[in-house]
This record gives sequence, C-alpha cells and structure tokens, in this order.
Amino acid sequence: MSTQNIILLLDLMGIFAFALDGALTAIRTARVDIVGVMALGVVTAIGGGIIRDVLLGETPATFQDWRYLVTALAGGTLAFFLSSQLTHLSKPILLFDAAGLSLFAVIGATKALEFGFGPLQAVLLGVITGVGGGTIRDVLLNRIPTVLSANSHLYAIPAMLAAGIVVAADLAGFSAGWIAIVGALVCFGTRVLSLRYRWNAPSPPGAPPL
Amino acid sequence: MSTQNIILLLDLMGIFAFALDGALTAIRTARVDIVGVMALGVVTAIGGGIIRDVLLGETPATFQDWRYLVTALAGGTLAFFLSSQLTHLSKPILLFDAAGLSLFAVIGATKALEFGFGPLQAVLLGVITGVGGGTIRDVLLNRIPTVLSANSHLYAIPAMLAAGIVVAADLAGFSAGWIAIVGALVCFGTRVLSLRYRWNAPSPPGAPPL
Amino acid sequence: MSTQNIILLLDLMGIFAFALDGALTAIRTARVDIVGVMALGVVTAIGGGIIRDVLLGETPATFQDWRYLVTALAGGTLAFFLSSQLTHLSKPILLFDAAGLSLFAVIGATKALEFGFGPLQAVLLGVITGVGGGTIRDVLLNRIPTVLSANSHLYAIPAMLAAGIVVAADLAGFSAGWIAIVGALVCFGTRVLSLRYRWNAPSPPGAPPL
Repeated sequence: MSTQNIILLLDLMGIFAFALDGALTAIRTARVDIVGVMALGVVTAIGGGIIRDVLLGETPATFQDWRYLVTALAGGTLAFFLSSQLTHLSKPILLFDAAGLSLFAVIGATKALEFGFGPLQAVLLGVITGVGGGTIRDVLLNRIPTVLSANSHLYAIPAMLAAGIVVAADLAGFSAGWIAIVGALVCFGTRVLSLRYRWNAPSPPGAPPL
Repeated sequence: MSTQNIILLLDLMGIFAFALDGALTAIRTARVDIVGVMALGVVTAIGGGIIRDVLLGETPATFQDWRYLVTALAGGTLAFFLSSQLTHLSKPILLFDAAGLSLFAVIGATKALEFGFGPLQAVLLGVITGVGGGTIRDVLLNRIPTVLSANSHLYAIPAMLAAGIVVAADLAGFSAGWIAIVGALVCFGTRVLSLRYRWNAPSPPGAPPL
Repeated sequence: MSTQNIILLLDLMGIFAFALDGALTAIRTARVDIVGVMALGVVTAIGGGIIRDVLLGETPATFQDWRYLVTALAGGTLAFFLSSQLTHLSKPILLFDAAGLSLFAVIGATKALEFGFGPLQAVLLGVITGVGGGTIRDVLLNRIPTVLSANSHLYAIPAMLAAGIVVAADLAGFSAGWIAIVGALVCFGTRVLSLRYRWNAPSPPGAPPL
C-alpha cells in the first residue's frame, strides 16, 4: 500500500471518528434536530482539514473528492440513529475524538512538509488540523473549546507529539506512511492515558487549584 | 438581462437583506453601538460570500467590487436609524433572513458549478454560502446558530432545496439565470411556510419533545 | 531603514503586544492551562494577520517566516510566568491590545493597497486585521467581542482612522514607512483617550442608556 493510500485511509478514518464525535456531542449538549446533528458531525469532521487546506492555499480536499463528505455524512447518520442506544455517551465520544485528533495531527504535519513549510510551522499546522474541527464544534455549541480548557486533560500536547514525530522523522530523512501511523498511535495513547490518569498540563503560577 | 447580471442583482439583494437582518438582530439581542450594528450588518451580509470565495480559492467578491460593501453598509445604516420605529422586530428580521438565505444558496451553488465542483459539493457550498453569514452573526452574539437549533424550524433544508434545484438543472443541461430565481423562491417559500406552520426537522430518536 | 523593514518591525511588535494581551486575557477570564494560555496568545497575535493573508489570497506570513510564531510564543511565555506578579491586569492588557490594534490596522491597510485593493476595501481590510485576532480571542473565550460591545469605548473607530490615514496618504501619492507610524500613533492615542475619558460611539436611537 502506497504512502499516498495510507494517508487517504487515515484521513477517512479521522473524518469518520470526528463525525461521530461531533454528532454525538451535539445530541448530548444541545437541542438539535437532524440538520444540527449532521451539520455538527460534518463540521467537526471536515473543519480541521478545511482550515489546513485554506492555510496551505489549495482547494479543500472535501471539495475535490466526494469520499470525504460521504464519510462525514455516514458518521453523522450513524450517530443520529444510534444515539438513543448509547446511554453513556461520554466515553465513546472521547475515544472518537482522540482518534480524529491523532489522525488529523499527523496528516496536517505531513501535508505542511509536502508544501515546504518549516518544521515549527509544520508542527503548528498539524496541531491546528487536529484541534480545528473540535474547536469549531465547541464554538458553535457555545462552549469554551476543549483544547483551551484546563480540566480537559492533555489535548494539544498529544497532537504536538504526533506532529513532532512526523516532522523529526522528516528532518532525519524518513517520510514513509508507517511513521504517520506511529505518530498517530503515540498521540492516541497519550491522550487516552491522560484521560485515564487525569494528567493536566501546568496552570499559570498563582492560579487556584482545579 | 444576462445571467451574469441577474446573479449580481440577486447577490446585492441578498447582501442588503442580510445586512438589515444582522444589524436588527444585533440591536435586539445585545448592547451594541453604531459600530457593532454596522459590523454585524456587514459580517452577516458578506460572511457567507467570503467563506464561499475563500473555499473556491479566489479573492472574495467584496474586495473586488465596492458595490457589495456599500450595499451592506447601506443596509446597516438603514437598520440603525429605523430600529426605534420598528417595535416588533422579529418578523421583518425573519423575512430578511429568509431572503438572504435563499439568494445566497442559489448563488453559492451556481458559483461552485462554474468552478467545476461536483454536485454534492456544489449543494454543500450553496448551503454554506446561505447559512454562513448568519452563523458568524450568531457566534459573535454568543448564541447557538439558528441553523443548528432544533426549534428554529426548517432553515438548512430550504437552502439545500434551492442549491439542489440549481445543481439538478445544471445536470439536466439548463443553467439560465431564471433557474436561480426559481430555486430562491422555493427556498424562501419553504422557509416562510415552515415558520408559519412551525414545521421542524426530526429530532434524534429518544430526544425529549420540544 | 527601508519601508519593508519598518513594516516587519511594526508587525512583530504588534504580534508581541497581542500575544501578551491574549495570554493575559485568557488567564484572567477562564480556567486555562499553559496550553490554553499559549494558544490564546498565539491566536490573538496571528489571527488578524492570517485572516488578512487568506483574504489577500497568499500563504499567511506566519507560515512563511518563523519569526512571527517565535515572537508570539515569546509573548505567551512571558505572560504565563509574569501573570502572578501582575495583580491588576486590566490596564496593561488594554494597552497591549491598543498597540496591537494600531500596528495591525496600518499593516493590513498597507498590504491591501500593495495588492491593488480599492480605498474602501483597504480600510476594511486594515480594520479586520486590527480587530480579527482579538475577536477570535473573545469568541474562543465565549464573550461578545470587544469590537461589537457598546461599553468597550472606541475600538474599531481608531483602527478605521489609522487605516484611513494610510489609504489617504497613498491616494495623495505618499507611501513611506513613517506614514504607517503616524497612523498607528493616531489609533493608539485615540483608543487610549477614549478609554481615559470614556468616549463611546452613538447607540441606536431609542436604546436604553449605558
């Protein structure tokens, strides 16, 4: 399987995970109808990639290839019909979100390197791609975005690790598809461990304890 | 009148309607001064078109042709001075909003087809153009956007119908300006009927009734 | 010193001021960890410039030149460690914010003229560049943006003055770097005076007094 195809597959998996995440979050936190569920699923799924492609100066992947949008709509539809079965939604939402974050961080960094961005900027673009969709989701749902909140455990840091692995490997002369998979697994593992053991990043000196 | 001119005229009408809508909404729901009124009028009016043009990869129409901005400022100014006369603002706001939605949905879909986007993507871009300005308006006013809310009646669905008519006509080989007008009228009619008869899209299974 | 270098220096100063502003505002108004502080610093600092460059259709300066991002991170880091020393944060925040607003308004208008935008559009792009980063900051912190609020004193109007001076000078045939400095000083002075003497822009007729 070519690196190109591995990246496409990871991208579609990230879109599906984020679509489930966005749609289930919408159902859980707001009074939304089917349009709101689908819209939040799609926005969460394709938002990060759209920001990434606009910053890279190219037509967003979503508008070039119908598979992205169909995958996002499939995730939203599944969430709509399964929502009543899932009584405890918070755990699967967090796992889908972690998967989307991991996959998009490595894809964003990979694309930034392809476009000739410097290492620091490639890490930033990876993180933006990873956290972008969820941040738009939270802004639309009128909540402080997960990525900024002190008690949502490590979120941007795992994405930074993933993007950093891709960028460091590229600097060292590697750029195979399996490095993206390693980066995504490190991000996913770090995110899940930080949720499990309630790791938090340091707060500003003098801030009251959480 | 050429198709080009019909589209320009519809675009300016949509901008004027959304500028009135955004400015009156600002006056009604927040403590804003003249700058806030004008800014929300302009953002509501040109926001959808700017998102559309950024996604299409071209310089936004607003920055290429001064008539867009002047029309938006005229709508904001009119709203500022008329606001105290209009004691019951909610109905005209809803009608201006429906007009902007209708006109922008057909223009967004038309432009997407011109740029060679696929049918699914053209419908999506039409809907984004229609709901984009109002969504930015609601985010800035710290409210859950109309398009997502379960009790704001049909909103994205009429825009989808309008964009769908334009796309279907194009697939069937028609692309005249009057098809845009038909699409806009269908969207406007559906939106107004859904407000009048309180039609709502289905909510997720198991959600509490509205 | 060339006009090019003056503009770069002013841009980096604006980024540093907005990074301090965004990071201190985050610490003051929300429960954020170090990631939230840095992210809000960076977003406030580079948000206006990113919007500007996306609207101009070019790769955002942040991704072309690492000095922008490093300057923003330096501002965020400084704010993180100094925050507990600064017991009364509101005054320095307002001054940093005024400095960022002034510098970005003139840079945005200057760049718009370079790209051949008309005078009205150049003023608009200057204002968007000035208020953009702070508006994203406020949206992410779930507050009504400063620029829209009736009791935040003059904010967009000083930015309009600064951009207007740059555009008027250009129309009159001047385009030296010192005109940008004059524009920025007028904006900064007007903003500080409006805070000191509590100047407000007019509210809509019939609105209750502040």
